[in-house]
Amino acid sequence: MRPLVIGSVAYDSVETPFGHATDLLGGSATYFSLASALFSPARIVAVVGHDFRSTDTQLFQSRGIDVSGLEQLPGKTFRWGGKYHTNMNIRDTLFTELNVFAEFVPKLSDEHRNAKFVFLANIAPKLQLEVLQQVTAPRFVACDTMNFWINGPQRQDLITLLAKVDCLIINDEEAELLTGVPGVVRAANLILKAGPSIVIIKRGEHGALVFSENDVFYVPAYPLESVIDPTGAGDTFAGGIMGYLAGIGDVSPRTLRQATVVGSLLASFCVEDFGIGALLRVDAEAIAARYRRMAEIVQFEPLPL
Amino acid sequence: MRPLVIGSVAYDSVETPFGHATDLLGGSATYFSLASALFSPARIVAVVGHDFRSTDTQLFQSRGIDVSGLEQLPGKTFRWGGKYHTNMNIRDTLFTELNVFAEFVPKLSDEHRNAKFVFLANIAPKLQLEVLQQVTAPRFVACDTMNFWINGPQRQDLITLLAKVDCLIINDEEAELLTGVPGVVRAANLILKAGPSIVIIKRGEHGALVFSENDVFYVPAYPLESVIDPTGAGDTFAGGIMGYLAGIGDVSPRTLRQATVVGSLLASFCVEDFGIGALLRVDAEAIAARYRRMAEIVQFEPLPL
Repeated sequence: MRPLVIGSVAYDSVETPFGHATDLLGGSATYFSLASALFSPARIVAVVGHDFRSTDTQLFQSRGIDVSGLEQLPGKTFRWGGKYHTNMNIRDTLFTELNVFAEFVPKLSDEHRNAKFVFLANIAPKLQLEVLQQVTAPRFVACDTMNFWINGPQRQDLITLLAKVDCLIINDEEAELLTGVPGVVRAANLILKAGPSIVIIKRGEHGALVFSENDVFYVPAYPLESVIDPTGAGDTFAGGIMGYLAGIGDVSPRTLRQATVVGSLLASFCVEDFGIGALLRVDAEAIAARYRRMAEIVQFEPLPL
Repeated sequence: MRPLVIGSVAYDSVETPFGHATDLLGGSATYFSLASALFSPARIVAVVGHDFRSTDTQLFQSRGIDVSGLEQLPGKTFRWGGKYHTNMNIRDTLFTELNVFAEFVPKLSDEHRNAKFVFLANIAPKLQLEVLQQVTAPRFVACDTMNFWINGPQRQDLITLLAKVDCLIINDEEAELLTGVPGVVRAANLILKAGPSIVIIKRGEHGALVFSENDVFYVPAYPLESVIDPTGAGDTFAGGIMGYLAGIGDVSPRTLRQATVVGSLLASFCVEDFGIGALLRVDAEAIAARYRRMAEIVQFEPLPL
């Protein structure tokens, strides 16, 4: 099966201690679908402007990604600019030009309505809800969100959404903000009571935690000598998870653990170059090698009796 | 075998969002030896004042800990006061009264000179060096340090010490500060070139990483609903590691991984109550239960071919 992703396709300008780059193909749906495509090519629902490069559309198509839901409107493509500090965990947003994204009203085609695996990337909760209502019989729905929606006037829409999704994928600070409690374990357990049966907490360089009613899974971040550009790591992580699940067509705890490791490893590749550069070079062999290495990294023997 | 620990024995006053407590038995050698005693009771080399409670000496003895190196001097015992914020990772030191600790000149007895497993807790690098020179033929020496020594006039002593130890146990920020490079992977690899064959990076609620020339091991922190008092977690971690290694009498990579998991779990117990309270209630069964749970938490299946 192929996952459906609703999110942004953007041009990013990024400054890091290692250099800078402008008008990089980016956005949540871009990172998600390029990661997912390594297991199952996604169907993108997003909007771009008249200035969207045809070579970028072709790039998606070359990866088997369905761009029939990539609407092109008069006006400019969403642009975002950010600057990372020496500590890559700290990022300043330099500018956000919504452009055509401000008018984004996602309408699903008949084919897209039949999607079984759906990822609602970080957009307004109201839009996430509207999209979800158009999907006929989804099997596994995951969503992302951010501080802006958690603390803003659309908070109630977000709470309504949470009761309708299977999985929330957010970072640790957002989980604490959403619930108002310190500590990811308490926060995740509270979120589980609000709807989703699975909560995946992203902790950047510290890895990720997967919480469900009777299970906790932890995967560390793959140890890297250097990080070049963290942009898109979170959406790459989600794309790896959803692409793996949809590709296998299974959401058992066992498959979800494998999917989370895969997502984490794809994020480790993603941050090793600017934009989508490193993600385009990843292949099945590279993923398998880091997967085996990760199994070694966390392995320990039982205690002697 | 029994580990030798050189460090502090103190009375701590602690404020956390959950309450406060004064004159708690604390200090690096205290936490270390109570953790170690669960596998192999340590020999303490430390100094206390005339006000040191005989019940505290008896507590050490009841755990089989050798207090023949616990020197009692006229004057008061080292006292430390700290306050934790709602985010328990942030701590203010309210006061530090060195008292008799200011005159601490550790002299090892003949029996202590024969120690094979030695932990040099966070004291002046000059003192750590002087102690180490008194040990006849150590088999495995680990040390801790802190920002104060890394950035201070004793930095050169610390560099000299690093060339003489087998293992450095420090937190991530200290590793970056010591080497001047961002990122724990690069920092740890630089430290390995400076002497120790093993570098263990403590990351608090994010777990711990063990680096050696050809190996990386990661153990997450045991997921806890709530943390009551983080004081002593780092020394408890070190005490669990050294006690386990000395008890088994082996420092193979396999045993070191088990030891690191044990140390991490003991730290998870430690932070669940004020001071040494929770540590005193831990038994082999409780450790074994969390150990098995941790193995489940990090477990994932290979990728299908």
